[in-house]
Amino acid sequence: MTDTDTNSWRGVQSELLRRINEKEWPAGSLVPNEVDLAEEFGCARTTVNRAMRELADAGLLVRRRKAGTRVATHPASRVVLDIPIIRLEVEQRNAEWRQSLIEKTACVPPVRITSRLGLDPDAQMLHVRSLHFADNHPFLHEDRWMNIAALPGVERVDFSAVSSNEWLIENAPYTTGDIAFSAMNADAALADLLEAPLGAAIFVVDRITWDKDIPITSVRLSYAPGYRMNTKI
Amino acid sequence: MTDTDTNSWRGVQSELLRRINEKEWPAGSLVPNEVDLAEEFGCARTTVNRAMRELADAGLLVRRRKAGTRVATHPASRVVLDIPIIRLEVEQRNAEWRQSLIEKTACVPPVRITSRLGLDPDAQMLHVRSLHFADNHPFLHEDRWMNIAALPGVERVDFSAVSSNEWLIENAPYTTGDIAFSAMNADAALADLLEAPLGAAIFVVDRITWDKDIPITSVRLSYAPGYRMNTKI
Repeated sequence: MTDTDTNSWRGVQSELLRRINEKEWPAGSLVPNEVDLAEEFGCARTTVNRAMRELADAGLLVRRRKAGTRVATHPASRVVLDIPIIRLEVEQRNAEWRQSLIEKTACVPPVRITSRLGLDPDAQMLHVRSLHFADNHPFLHEDRWMNIAALPGVERVDFSAVSSNEWLIENAPYTTGDIAFSAMNADAALADLLEAPLGAAIFVVDRITWDKDIPITSVRLSYAPGYRMNTKI
Repeated sequence: MTDTDTNSWRGVQSELLRRINEKEWPAGSLVPNEVDLAEEFGCARTTVNRAMRELADAGLLVRRRKAGTRVATHPASRVVLDIPIIRLEVEQRNAEWRQSLIEKTACVPPVRITSRLGLDPDAQMLHVRSLHFADNHPFLHEDRWMNIAALPGVERVDFSAVSSNEWLIENAPYTTGDIAFSAMNADAALADLLEAPLGAAIFVVDRITWDKDIPITSVRLSYAPGYRMNTKI
């Protein structure tokens, strides 16, 4: 038992979590009942109940009315996605890659970009948009904002010669990021770029990366219709 | 070695890529030096160098001046997705989960299902379709085929009381699987179920699982519009 404060439900929860994570309570094992835990922790039974409810909601504990509470045996399925650079993704499909630079402008981005990156709303960023092709068919549209202050010289890079995707991998290693996958209907501009019907279902990847706590880039990749991201479980 | 043309750097690159992708050269392993590869491929050393340079730029090979070239242990970007059971995914959004069973029929599935599972095209499977709700709004449509031969008693399970998703997790642990993410436009039936406009962009997860080499289930999850799958890099 750590010296966590077990008078609060958060303290109890963190102790329960520790026992689960360190396998002190192995997967599938029966967890002591709430009355016994309350006595052990010197807290109210409702405190234990509150702490366990959240863990059950999160799928770490499995509560059965008659059979008591057990440590979950089934972590959800875990999937590892290796996201290659775009050129390689095209080449791995045995297609020839090329890109076409659509825009490169230093300007103040929409607030939704600066706010998610944690940047000053007046900060200029470099807006780089390119279309990537596979065998001369549009493969995806890359819509990227780059933090000029964190990327010395980025304004002078010729992104028609090197894709911003590859330039960043070589010049700005990131340490953390958020990624989100979704689907959206193509608007007129995107449909036109991707040579897709208006309203076509588009697979979208949004990614934001930081180097420690410095925001580096925010990018949206919009794939031409029919794209599938495959992996193994 | 495939019969790729290894006189060109693209030919060499595609052969190197194959060796990396098929783990003939495992992650972290030392790659033969350029002179030896040039001899093996019957090409110029500069051709091998050109092919490897691009793979190094792409982060698939790691070159060290003295220590030689190794297969990267870290691809461009690695994402771990923990896919929770559907009920938990809903509850983690602080919404109330319920499901409604739409169909449970033993029948011969479409050939695309049996062929991907490697089952006899005449094999009967259990077709279970359910709608999952979050706070009484449609959350996703689950369209599942279950291998009756591998799941004794499955035909007698009341899938209106327990979702097939949870029943399988508790009763049929899988060992391997394929998973694919894509986007599609809702057809009339799906739009109706998900209370979405006809043609709305739908985020789709297709998953097939095996227990060793026995096919267990093939499922398509079609999420209501607006769904985002988020994770950290």
